[in-house]
Amino acid sequence: MDEIDISWVAEPDLDDPVFVEGLPGVGHVGKLVAEHVVEETDSELVCRIHSEHFPPQVTVSDDSVAELASAEVYAVETEGRDLVVLTGDHQAQDNVGHYRVCEAFLDVAEEFDASEVYALGGVPTGELVEEHDVVGAVSDADMKADLEDAGVEFRSEEPAGGIVGSSGLLLGLGGKRGFDAACLMGETSGYLVDPKAAKVVLAVLESMLGFEVDEEALDDRADEMEEVVGRLREMEEGASPGGDEDLRYIG
Amino acid sequence: MDEIDISWVAEPDLDDPVFVEGLPGVGHVGKLVAEHVVEETDSELVCRIHSEHFPPQVTVSDDSVAELASAEVYAVETEGRDLVVLTGDHQAQDNVGHYRVCEAFLDVAEEFDASEVYALGGVPTGELVEEHDVVGAVSDADMKADLEDAGVEFRSEEPAGGIVGSSGLLLGLGGKRGFDAACLMGETSGYLVDPKAAKVVLAVLESMLGFEVDEEALDDRADEMEEVVGRLREMEEGASPGGDEDLRYIG
Amino acid sequence: MDEIDISWVAEPDLDDPVFVEGLPGVGHVGKLVAEHVVEETDSELVCRIHSEHFPPQVTVSDDSVAELASAEVYAVETEGRDLVVLTGDHQAQDNVGHYRVCEAFLDVAEEFDASEVYALGGVPTGELVEEHDVVGAVSDADMKADLEDAGVEFRSEEPAGGIVGSSGLLLGLGGKRGFDAACLMGETSGYLVDPKAAKVVLAVLESMLGFEVDEEALDDRADEMEEVVGRLREMEEGASPGGDEDLRYIG
Amino acid sequence: MDEIDISWVAEPDLDDPVFVEGLPGVGHVGKLVAEHVVEETDSELVCRIHSEHFPPQVTVSDDSVAELASAEVYAVETEGRDLVVLTGDHQAQDNVGHYRVCEAFLDVAEEFDASEVYALGGVPTGELVEEHDVVGAVSDADMKADLEDAGVEFRSEEPAGGIVGSSGLLLGLGGKRGFDAACLMGETSGYLVDPKAAKVVLAVLESMLGFEVDEEALDDRADEMEEVVGRLREMEEGASPGGDEDLRYIG
Repeated sequence: MDEIDISWVAEPDLDDPVFVEGLPGVGHVGKLVAEHVVEETDSELVCRIHSEHFPPQVTVSDDSVAELASAEVYAVETEGRDLVVLTGDHQAQDNVGHYRVCEAFLDVAEEFDASEVYALGGVPTGELVEEHDVVGAVSDADMKADLEDAGVEFRSEEPAGGIVGSSGLLLGLGGKRGFDAACLMGETSGYLVDPKAAKVVLAVLESMLGFEVDEEALDDRADEMEEVVGRLREMEEGASPGGDEDLRYIG
Repeated sequence: MDEIDISWVAEPDLDDPVFVEGLPGVGHVGKLVAEHVVEETDSELVCRIHSEHFPPQVTVSDDSVAELASAEVYAVETEGRDLVVLTGDHQAQDNVGHYRVCEAFLDVAEEFDASEVYALGGVPTGELVEEHDVVGAVSDADMKADLEDAGVEFRSEEPAGGIVGSSGLLLGLGGKRGFDAACLMGETSGYLVDPKAAKVVLAVLESMLGFEVDEEALDDRADEMEEVVGRLREMEEGASPGGDEDLRYIG
Repeated sequence: MDEIDISWVAEPDLDDPVFVEGLPGVGHVGKLVAEHVVEETDSELVCRIHSEHFPPQVTVSDDSVAELASAEVYAVETEGRDLVVLTGDHQAQDNVGHYRVCEAFLDVAEEFDASEVYALGGVPTGELVEEHDVVGAVSDADMKADLEDAGVEFRSEEPAGGIVGSSGLLLGLGGKRGFDAACLMGETSGYLVDPKAAKVVLAVLESMLGFEVDEEALDDRADEMEEVVGRLREMEEGASPGGDEDLRYIG
Repeated sequence: MDEIDISWVAEPDLDDPVFVEGLPGVGHVGKLVAEHVVEETDSELVCRIHSEHFPPQVTVSDDSVAELASAEVYAVETEGRDLVVLTGDHQAQDNVGHYRVCEAFLDVAEEFDASEVYALGGVPTGELVEEHDVVGAVSDADMKADLEDAGVEFRSEEPAGGIVGSSGLLLGLGGKRGFDAACLMGETSGYLVDPKAAKVVLAVLESMLGFEVDEEALDDRADEMEEVVGRLREMEEGASPGGDEDLRYIG
């Protein structure tokens, strides 16, 4: 296997598609959105990306077949813009690998003549969030007006710690290669898998790209998490009356 | 030395052999089985595999000769299928190395025209195990029926954490290269070197490949471990009456 | 992107310039000086250096534009010597990367025919410092006399732990390539961002290179830090009367 | 700079020399011996070996000149065999680097047509040692008889944990390349820099190679360490009457 290995399984014709990335990260927001879109639409797997920079492991499917660590790319045709959606269970495990794997992601985007990239993720607030804003960052300031119209907030020098990993590099490397790249980050505590944050990010994406998908699965997932949070609050209140909302990461 | 260096010492003719891997891992189950087969049969060392990705060290033999960290491959002729058995003291130490070393293992398998791969290991249960099942994962669902007949259990999406390291990659990379690859994992606590788990994995291998080896050495080793476990239980009961069975890793 | 990627944005003519490096490190002394010089002069960005060895991240600017991790190089014309100033938010994240990134820094210095290198930094004393000396190390003993005239102290075999990171390698690799390289290290506690240490290093640089810049911004920053230190002292004295001056790193 | 960079400063003619390595390690035994031999003889620096796999740092000499992390090789003519002695302050910092740096060491040995390699080090006993034996390991069992005559002990499968780092790889890689390589390990607590262990290793080396050097400097160093140990014992006895001899690493 090469350092990065792209196995194509389909080469559908898409019409001026947008590249959308959602990998594991803060609150798993990006991955939740990307997987939801893939599941709720007529999506088609187009390639798997394997890499020495992913963990040396396989996952085991429901029929006990081993699947080598990978990112997957799906073609999605919607009533609005067509999408090329990248998701998966892993980010690269090392510094250099992050750069190389993200360049490969952009190669795939180029393969589809996509010139716009949306990197989806979460931004940690450190406390439980009731109202989830979507914070944005862009490769080019000209992109901001349309995104603001779709509800994205732009805050000077935020997130303060920068954007780390695939989402950050898709903006940084994407911008360098001439893509119009935006990162959409749903506010989330940072302690919990957060389907509600995923919903607000999805809403921005739908507004920008002119499509709509059923949200029931995300709602159900959000209800489950609400229950978990409720139980945690009860435990906290029992243990330390008036305790703060600082919870460990749960999902 | 190259990044990976294969030193051939013999090139025996084997008849349609099966490639069997047993390296250190959970409960050292895979290594126990592979070494036992090599010791209890007329086996012949065919090559040593050295790599920069193995630890930078030598082991010292009984006659004080230094042996560079390596994996070893043995040719084994049995009354059933011929075997190419890979074992050793080390796995690769880094992510990229895991991938490259496993590709080299598969190169050796190809050298012998082996098209089937058995990766042996343990699956941790977190508690002391009385009955050891053998859990399986495969590169191709068609392989499951025969393995089930030999006593292997297939459980949907298990092990939940995937299969990490050489055994996992032999399935993942092996499948990608067209091998029929199966991972046979003996249930084991995860805290102890487990010759009993090794015996059940060996039994499946023997059944699949039509050979049989003396098991006395594994039984002796199992008896020793039983004594260790007994003493640990006593210590635990002394220290914390009704204590659980959560032990540190011992071997 | 290549392993190291230099994006040129201007190629000004400088007259026999000196290469000055100030990256994050002990007390952020080097970075404070380099950034101060760039801000207080008519400086011009000449190139950005990106590398797989920098962290896989972007920072977000005040107008929400993502900027890929980089080091930046500025051309500075002064009333004395011209300067090529390298600064940024990151050092390489791995051993090999440190070497390769520093070679690229020296390539940039050569691009400008600079033959002298000043690597700026701090040297930790482990306690709060009232009088900040500037300790020096050089690639060639002939450089010492002039630096001593400018107030630099040379102490045998100090700093005892050597000089680690970019500043150290610019001396080591720079000397190897024929540059006259000096490291100017302001004494600093090692616990705090230290604008006062930056001022004494700046003073040496100004004296050596015949220029002068306004110091108000560094003074303001120093006053802020004085307040922080004052509050910390009060807290310490409250908590442990006669307590020592061993503080955590704050900036 | 290349991944590994050998800067030659002299190319003396040596007569059938022996390659001797002593780098930092257990009890700093190897480094103590190698440096002592270099200092007590008419030695000549022949090359410096730099590498990206050494730490990214310089040390500062007594005249404040920065010296890039390196290993140094000296030519030593004795009344017995000529020596090529490798010493320095660093081992490689990563797995792959260990292998590559050691291959470069062996390249230097070949440059001098040395066919014998002595890797010097310590073997940790875990307790303070009164009588220091020298334990050996070899690349070829035929070497053992002469070494035993010189006082080396060969113990089956010891050290049990193998030999890690440069000394181990010089045996492993050296043996692979056809060198006669031996590792001489002085028994030492593992907690202290140990000049006494160095003396016994030196004695074996002198006996094998037919030379003798003044030992006063090692004796002085040993006396200093005796005092340190004495004070530590007193402190221990004060703190815990009848306390064991388990001390932290001190040097």
